[in-house]
Amino acid sequence: MKFYMPTKLYLEEDCVYRHRKELAALGSHALLVTGRHSARVNGAYDDVVKSLEDQGVSYSLFDEIEENPSVETVARAAAFGREQKADFVIGIGGGSPMDAAKAIALLMNHPEEEPSVLYEKKELEALPVAAVPTTAGTGSEVTPYAILTLHELQTKKSMSHHVFPVLSLADAKYLSFAGRELLINTAVDTLAHLIESHLNKNTTEYSRLFSSQGLKLWGEIKEALSAGELSGGQYEKLMRTSTLGGMAISHTGTSFPHGMSYYLTYNMGVPHGKAVGIFLPAFLELYGTKEPDEVRQVLEYLDFDEIGTFRKYIRQVLGTIKVTEEQITSYTDGMMANTAKLANFPYPVTKEQMRNLFETSLAVQ
Amino acid sequence: MKFYMPTKLYLEEDCVYRHRKELAALGSHALLVTGRHSARVNGAYDDVVKSLEDQGVSYSLFDEIEENPSVETVARAAAFGREQKADFVIGIGGGSPMDAAKAIALLMNHPEEEPSVLYEKKELEALPVAAVPTTAGTGSEVTPYAILTLHELQTKKSMSHHVFPVLSLADAKYLSFAGRELLINTAVDTLAHLIESHLNKNTTEYSRLFSSQGLKLWGEIKEALSAGELSGGQYEKLMRTSTLGGMAISHTGTSFPHGMSYYLTYNMGVPHGKAVGIFLPAFLELYGTKEPDEVRQVLEYLDFDEIGTFRKYIRQVLGTIKVTEEQITSYTDGMMANTAKLANFPYPVTKEQMRNLFETSLAVQ
Ligand SMILES: [Fe+2]
Ligand SMILES: [Fe+2]
Repeated sequence: MKFYMPTKLYLEEDCVYRHRKELAALGSHALLVTGRHSARVNGAYDDVVKSLEDQGVSYSLFDEIEENPSVETVARAAAFGREQKADFVIGIGGGSPMDAAKAIALLMNHPEEEPSVLYEKKELEALPVAAVPTTAGTGSEVTPYAILTLHELQTKKSMSHHVFPVLSLADAKYLSFAGRELLINTAVDTLAHLIESHLNKNTTEYSRLFSSQGLKLWGEIKEALSAGELSGGQYEKLMRTSTLGGMAISHTGTSFPHGMSYYLTYNMGVPHGKAVGIFLPAFLELYGTKEPDEVRQVLEYLDFDEIGTFRKYIRQVLGTIKVTEEQITSYTDGMMANTAKLANFPYPVTKEQMRNLFETSLAVQ
Repeated sequence: MKFYMPTKLYLEEDCVYRHRKELAALGSHALLVTGRHSARVNGAYDDVVKSLEDQGVSYSLFDEIEENPSVETVARAAAFGREQKADFVIGIGGGSPMDAAKAIALLMNHPEEEPSVLYEKKELEALPVAAVPTTAGTGSEVTPYAILTLHELQTKKSMSHHVFPVLSLADAKYLSFAGRELLINTAVDTLAHLIESHLNKNTTEYSRLFSSQGLKLWGEIKEALSAGELSGGQYEKLMRTSTLGGMAISHTGTSFPHGMSYYLTYNMGVPHGKAVGIFLPAFLELYGTKEPDEVRQVLEYLDFDEIGTFRKYIRQVLGTIKVTEEQITSYTDGMMANTAKLANFPYPVTKEQMRNLFETSLAVQ
């Protein structure tokens, strides 16, 4: 079994400014990577800028990262970063800017390569990446993954290269600026990471330390989440469960719900957390046909008495998603060809079971 | 709170040969650092050599690391390594060769510095270090610490610099070559790491994940350890608990028992694990006056019903250590000046309490 989690993480109030020396020590000119607005609203952008200026490190800003960032956007940002002679990258925001920062740092370090190299199997180093998460869900601040939109393949997919941030600064105070829907969608993404890592062929003693603790924390805030009323301490718990989920999937990868979600997100624009979470009850049910004790343990950590209560909870916070019969057929075929996700499930899965996962989770029109 | 554990660890059978590519990728000429005999007897040395030869990486051997290695030996090894133009270091054996490898890698990378730099506060990088543990106790394969003997100060002390191995290959099969006494002394060292990290001012959610799991595993093998009869699976548990202990103290440091042990080891040659373990019952008792629930939890993880049973167990496996009144007075004074260890205890400690720790743990002549 393997342990590998090289990111140095600080999770505490004011950690960006408090650890500005370590942040500034990553290079001499930073490329800041953000979305269009949120990093400014919640104060994270200002904290980073103030920290760099305090340390006399200059920076350039690329603030055009869209939700589900495309390879094209990443390539454009990398070209800009090279022009600006940046030698490290700071991703500020949710999963999109953080994932994009990893891919950008890789392309910036390899001007000789085309953007398509992101999906080739080569040993390439990236420039140093720092991450400042402002949502709690993706766990990207402690994973090596970068999920990008591939218009060519009409889906989202993690790039082939593994880029762990060298430094992550997770301050829960940014979370209080997120609206209820964003909070729930991102929190459910974390829940999916914890469940899909805990119930995974690659699960180990180490990954389970992270996933067990994360599931317990998630259970402690689930009522506040569904009520949309989190206190300061609960925001902090949310940040902690999110990073634990990231550490867990860094060791195991994810499973069916993540694989299944990408179709909904790509084709219908369903937010990642919702697209993933909608499949969790059916996934637990399928896993439970093989490993009932494991599933019971997960529900117990989360403090749900049974799978039915869990399903009700998920329906209540996420609502429903409508699809057509044709979509289900096409997504089922897609998943049956997704050897990476199939390999993370410890048992063979039939096409019928896969179709059933889609049918029981979605509202078929 | 901080998470930082950058070492890539493989803990599995035949992991040295299995991951020989990653080992060989660390450089072009390796300096192998071992003690005089054991690495050859248990097969670890042969596995490393076979792996490097398979990958066409050359090596030189420095096999003169003594127990409790001195700064002088480390300096001699570094000079040899530079002569041989080695560009990475592999420590093979127990804590002594692994700790030495870290200090050697640092000195090799800085020919301009005197060996005394090991105890100066400077930002210095080391050459890449790999670790192949052949005892389970020190956890050095996943810590940044290097405890060296300082004849000048008549004690042992960790160097000022933090050097995590970049790669550690932990194969429990080497443990079966150790005699009963070595096994017990090293296992008790692990126990001390787990307890001193769990009951520590610096304890965090992360360090507790490691220490809790390690304590449970330790509890599962304690009878087999005291009987001196470990099976294959139990050797593996011992290796796992040892690395968990290392990950725990990497986040918290150790506490009084480690600080107190160095006097016994330096002055009387008491093996590290025994010198540390002898103080554990009194340490639990002292901690229990402030945090009885925490201590109860530790005993429960270890599956001891009460502190008296724990004391009996420790006496049985370690025996006693005799000292004089004068020694106790001098060691007590030493500890009351050890600000680093005092800072890891969450409450103020009086000289009387410190003296009491020594007196109740040792046989005063
Ligand atoms: Fe996700
Ligand atoms: Fe130790």
